[in-house]
Amino acid sequence: MGADEKGYFTEGNSVEVVTGRNAGAKDERLKEVMDVITRKLHEAVKELEPTQEEWMQAILFLTRTGQMCNEWRQEFILLSDVLGVSMLVDAINNRKPSGASESTVLGPFHVADAPELPMGANICLDSKGEDMVIEGRILDTEGKPIANAVIDVWQANDEGFYDVQQKGIQPDFNLRGIFRTGPNGHYWFRAVKPKYYPIPDDGPVGQLLGHLGRHPYRPAHLHYIISADGFETLTTHIFDPDDPYIHSDAVFGVKKSLLAKFNRVNDPGRAKRYEFAGDFWEVAHNFVLARSRT
Amino acid sequence: MGADEKGYFTEGNSVEVVTGRNAGAKDERLKEVMDVITRKLHEAVKELEPTQEEWMQAILFLTRTGQMCNEWRQEFILLSDVLGVSMLVDAINNRKPSGASESTVLGPFHVADAPELPMGANICLDSKGEDMVIEGRILDTEGKPIANAVIDVWQANDEGFYDVQQKGIQPDFNLRGIFRTGPNGHYWFRAVKPKYYPIPDDGPVGQLLGHLGRHPYRPAHLHYIISADGFETLTTHIFDPDDPYIHSDAVFGVKKSLLAKFNRVNDPGRAKRYEFAGDFWEVAHNFVLARSRT
Ligand SMILES: [Cu+2]
Ligand SMILES: [Fe+3]
Ligand SMILES: [Fe+3]
Repeated sequence: MGADEKGYFTEGNSVEVVTGRNAGAKDERLKEVMDVITRKLHEAVKELEPTQEEWMQAILFLTRTGQMCNEWRQEFILLSDVLGVSMLVDAINNRKPSGASESTVLGPFHVADAPELPMGANICLDSKGEDMVIEGRILDTEGKPIANAVIDVWQANDEGFYDVQQKGIQPDFNLRGIFRTGPNGHYWFRAVKPKYYPIPDDGPVGQLLGHLGRHPYRPAHLHYIISADGFETLTTHIFDPDDPYIHSDAVFGVKKSLLAKFNRVNDPGRAKRYEFAGDFWEVAHNFVLARSRT
Repeated sequence: MGADEKGYFTEGNSVEVVTGRNAGAKDERLKEVMDVITRKLHEAVKELEPTQEEWMQAILFLTRTGQMCNEWRQEFILLSDVLGVSMLVDAINNRKPSGASESTVLGPFHVADAPELPMGANICLDSKGEDMVIEGRILDTEGKPIANAVIDVWQANDEGFYDVQQKGIQPDFNLRGIFRTGPNGHYWFRAVKPKYYPIPDDGPVGQLLGHLGRHPYRPAHLHYIISADGFETLTTHIFDPDDPYIHSDAVFGVKKSLLAKFNRVNDPGRAKRYEFAGDFWEVAHNFVLARSRT
């Protein structure tokens, strides 16, 4: 019997026989990954006892998912998202010390080269939607302000679309901006109230959601990447707790600590200072960064 | 809080939150399948704690696998094969009563419309390779012969290629045939000794095998589908136990009961009767069919 195997495959020894073949792997981590994936796959098959037809349906689903992918569309990331895998990987890689702001998924709509703007700028470039002002502080876990923190923010518009989804309709870099804090750690900018939106649901993942009786919507949110020297970079959102989908985010991105009250304000004096035409929305939210673990 | 969820996602409750969303699924089996797959996926992620980069590598591997598929190539079936999943599904769906011949995977090279041939015909149409004669009986589990059993056989040639892989090089239907037993359940036909061959290894699955230190070869075999009224159809192989890869079939298809001794014969009288030029190979193997479960 060859040294590279433990005998012939049977239903009982299936995991040992298959993972036994990985003994010669040069990359220890790859071996570990394939050992665990093989074991969990075999456990799933043994629990489900799929028919040959069900197995073929799974093969064809994965094939369609791969073939839906192109330069603009990553259907396997969507699949990972709707199965909670993306959030789980995010959680595992971003365990924060007590008091630090929590992370959530990056999402597909970040753009690397958004413009740096002066504090207070309006990131809404097309005057569409309901005016909103967002402000708060960037703090360390002792509550001290962080100067020179870089806040990269992006959001969907009042119809639930990002600029990159509506090239030629929205101005380039609409509802995106980069801000830098001063010594008091304070930030503020103007924008419009975002709206919930569906993840792309015209592919195999959208069909799966439909068959499972699930909707494809993400509750209204703003995305942030906040970085500062000596601190861990924070990738997160803030969410509108009054959104109809706040308890059923299609990608499971909502955390209690990321809810930020969106308050409706009737104050003609403040509206005039912000150059808003009338009533507006106001969101106050502080972010707390964890110190880098050297 | 919506009735369709159990609270916000955390590392601890990830399975319950994600599977809780499937509560509205109309298809109970789909719900069960997705519940188990979600649970096993989350277990794997929690055990492995992948980095974001490793997660992205997995996404891109699955994407490449889907994009390798076309009319002629099914890379996700290959992946299922090399992870032992195909054999496991086969085993679960073909648990046989004691004494019945065991099944193994169908493989991708079966052709539906092979010609029916008279018993004893030579399925080798191009005189390439070492002559071989195969014979035996089709029996029930009491050892009684089965008349009118249909034997669909196909095999690779002496270089490890099926006819469909070498259109224009091998004659159509080379090394394929359908035979029907008479009252004594006996079958025999002439062929050539098959050779081991690699599964297609120029794609992502072949690369994975390489990284795992695994070879892509299947030991030499003949494929069979054997059917008869009142019996379960048997999809199986017989293997050459002296093949260099017999203990390390890339797709785990070998079972002890499927080994069939390939004997070298020097017998000019028999060779002449078979119209063979000299020494030949002989394989004797009976197949036992299980009665249909109503
Ligand atoms: Cu051995
Ligand atoms: Fe978003
Ligand atoms: Fe084969």
